Amino acid sequence: MSPRAHITAIALAAPALAMVALAAPALAKKQPAPPSLEAVAAELIGGALTSDDAWEELTELCDTIGHRLTGSPALERAVDWGAARMAEDGLTATRQEVAVQVWTRGEESLTMLAPVERELGMLGLGWSVGTPGGGVEAEVLVVDDFEHLERLGEAVAGRIVLYDVPFTTYGETVKYRSKGPAAAEALGAVAVLVRSVAPHGLYTPHTGSLDHGAAPQIPAAAVTLEDAAWMRRLSERGEPVRLALKMGAQDRGEGVSHNVIGELKGRELPDEYVVLGCHLDSWDVGQGAQDDGFGCAAAMEAGRLIAALEVAPRRSVRVVLFTNEENGLGGARAYAAAAVEAGERHVGAIESDTGGGLPAGFRVDVRGEDEAAVEARLAEVMAALAPVSALLRPLAGDGLRRAYSGADVGPLVELGALGLGVDHDTTGYWPIHHTPADTLDKIDPDNLRRTAAEMAVMGYALAELDL
Amino acid sequence: MSPRAHITAIALAAPALAMVALAAPALAKKQPAPPSLEAVAAELIGGALTSDDAWEELTELCDTIGHRLTGSPALERAVDWGAARMAEDGLTATRQEVAVQVWTRGEESLTMLAPVERELGMLGLGWSVGTPGGGVEAEVLVVDDFEHLERLGEAVAGRIVLYDVPFTTYGETVKYRSKGPAAAEALGAVAVLVRSVAPHGLYTPHTGSLDHGAAPQIPAAAVTLEDAAWMRRLSERGEPVRLALKMGAQDRGEGVSHNVIGELKGRELPDEYVVLGCHLDSWDVGQGAQDDGFGCAAAMEAGRLIAALEVAPRRSVRVVLFTNEENGLGGARAYAAAAVEAGERHVGAIESDTGGGLPAGFRVDVRGEDEAAVEARLAEVMAALAPVSALLRPLAGDGLRRAYSGADVGPLVELGALGLGVDHDTTGYWPIHHTPADTLDKIDPDNLRRTAAEMAVMGYALAELDL
Repeated sequence: MSPRAHITAIALAAPALAMVALAAPALAKKQPAPPSLEAVAAELIGGALTSDDAWEELTELCDTIGHRLTGSPALERAVDWGAARMAEDGLTATRQEVAVQVWTRGEESLTMLAPVERELGMLGLGWSVGTPGGGVEAEVLVVDDFEHLERLGEAVAGRIVLYDVPFTTYGETVKYRSKGPAAAEALGAVAVLVRSVAPHGLYTPHTGSLDHGAAPQIPAAAVTLEDAAWMRRLSERGEPVRLALKMGAQDRGEGVSHNVIGELKGRELPDEYVVLGCHLDSWDVGQGAQDDGFGCAAAMEAGRLIAALEVAPRRSVRVVLFTNEENGLGGARAYAAAAVEAGERHVGAIESDTGGGLPAGFRVDVRGEDEAAVEARLAEVMAALAPVSALLRPLAGDGLRRAYSGADVGPLVELGALGLGVDHDTTGYWPIHHTPADTLDKIDPDNLRRTAAEMAVMGYALAELDL
Repeated sequence: MSPRAHITAIALAAPALAMVALAAPALAKKQPAPPSLEAVAAELIGGALTSDDAWEELTELCDTIGHRLTGSPALERAVDWGAARMAEDGLTATRQEVAVQVWTRGEESLTMLAPVERELGMLGLGWSVGTPGGGVEAEVLVVDDFEHLERLGEAVAGRIVLYDVPFTTYGETVKYRSKGPAAAEALGAVAVLVRSVAPHGLYTPHTGSLDHGAAPQIPAAAVTLEDAAWMRRLSERGEPVRLALKMGAQDRGEGVSHNVIGELKGRELPDEYVVLGCHLDSWDVGQGAQDDGFGCAAAMEAGRLIAALEVAPRRSVRVVLFTNEENGLGGARAYAAAAVEAGERHVGAIESDTGGGLPAGFRVDVRGEDEAAVEARLAEVMAALAPVSALLRPLAGDGLRRAYSGADVGPLVELGALGLGVDHDTTGYWPIHHTPADTLDKIDPDNLRRTAAEMAVMGYALAELDL
């Protein structure tokens, strides 16, 4: 089946919404009074740590669906799977239609022609254009950073620019992948290669998107750390490095995908919402296990555990498996736009999208124009969450620090929701991020249980407490 | 240029020898008395630790020649390079013709057809047969070990056997790569896959030879740890895994390669020899940096340093860059056969072929039919080498333990030479062994300097002392 078979072109100014109930809503039950936060946390943590459900769901997603780039049949299979699983878990499961832009990789290759002839490992960058049929052939120009590129000036014209930038933090280094192609194109480069954004590797190329908005018209791909180092050494010896790049990448235009929403109605404030989020799509390599099958399995498990409580929290809880995070953020934008349209107030939004390491609590994300007001709100939030966080101390999950929460919940945070990102140890994450090595075997099931426990307790608290 | 271009078919019962001097022999100089072992060691260690020569040679070999499988033009370029470098280093450099068997990989692919369709990472095993044009298509049978295979009996027929054996030691695990294909063929398997022989990976397939002597007529390839684990999980869930394997591998018959020998004549016993060995060939992936460019750079540097001494040692020293270690051992056998034919007495043979980790001294290898005699000889050797070893203590290179020395010096050890293998920490070696990740960037130049120092001091001692 072609990647296009499941895609029907649509043209909508605003995201289309198709909320189709797959199960009867789990309506709030009549209860005299809710148990204490401590009692609920005990039930959620105990349940999360003793259950295999999340691991089994992640195994299904990875092993029988696999990677799932926006536009692929696999992603829509995952949508169906997620909705079915959440319905089984006692949530009201719906699919929210999302207009997306579809990109496909196609056949691709990178060949060193001189000083020796070798096939090189590579992965084209998302949203790269393809090459003309015969490919692009040119000499490499090794560049240290953007300043170096600018200093090189006219020397860039006609060359394949290689950004050989060592990994510091993901945020610092990824800008060469996102902004590097357009910057090199502006100086006349014919193609761009980026040293993979990772601290180390085993001849492991890392894909990921370039900045689609900048719309560079030269092809761009990631190379391994090994080949970047090799080309640098050759260049420093004065050996010209000549490469041939072929990429069959294509912008396929508009398509349709879906967020999956699993809802539990709140018992007192059903029109106020707390989101437990992750993204269901992945790059088209590996199994999308840590990025972000792990987050989805954890969020679904947290939702299942909250739905199994005898007393629902005051506010409604939604597990949202966002679509199209990797190359468009269409799912996140569509969800937020629909929330605005429906007048839904989102109190908080938690995301797990930093892999499968030990979860050490949450990154707390409050935004606003007025920094004094943001600071005041942060202090208030930190104080309110401290007793919740303390309940996670035996899991070492009681960290709270001010930082970016997550891409999918970002639009909700912009709208005023408190953003929380599960704060995983990313030591083991960056080396497999966006690579064929992002597979189930790298995941510690206990970190999945811990993450589900933390999301469940914090999600419940956001839905229950005065914030 | 095709891999065949440099190969002329020859048919020889015994290895042909073509000793062509590339430089005037560095004859023993007239000296009254040699300096003390301590003084020589100081000069050798000081020289090795302060020189960039070995690193520059390894960089040249890796970056401008690259990988070099037996039969490839690259290997013969490396032969010319090694001879030229050793002549520059003051050694008498010769090329020793070696009859070899040539195997080529060709195009290859492994595709999962069910339960999902995916291209899988793989590397065919050396000496595997190719597949018929259309490839081999069959269901996978996951096997724990040879006993499990035998128990499965008739169930093996018609299946692609996957040996999913976790890494323990290289010696224990590699037997599934070497002996597994023939064992599965005997029960009617149509192809064999081996979980790559490595403790961990990043979707990293490891090639290597199967047992050529067993001549299995079914194709065999290595898969990644990730895909082996995936196929096991699917099988354990009862999901049939169907694969299509295509391999263009070919046995190309006889060819010619060369050992490179750099000789320094001994001042008193020029017809007794000490070998400083390594192998120049590599697998056809990566750069053959640790396996075994590192060993060659270290041995060449040790030879250069010994040749630069004012007084040559009593015995002759030969740096030998063996050919065809990876898939034939033709170089090792040819060298030993020539030594026998010429009546050369080889007193000792040192090899560095365990990667580029910290060198902790030597594995001491004495062989013989009579174990009591071997034990006595070992005790004698350990006692004689203890003061030499003590000189390497500041480098943490003073370890001496009884163990296998190396594949290339093996035939000389069988003939009575004392075998010594540089005893590297292999923690970082097995993950890159026989993979595209065996590249220069993984090597610590100081470990190369230390290895050269240890080989130089020990090589000199073997050539100087009564043993």
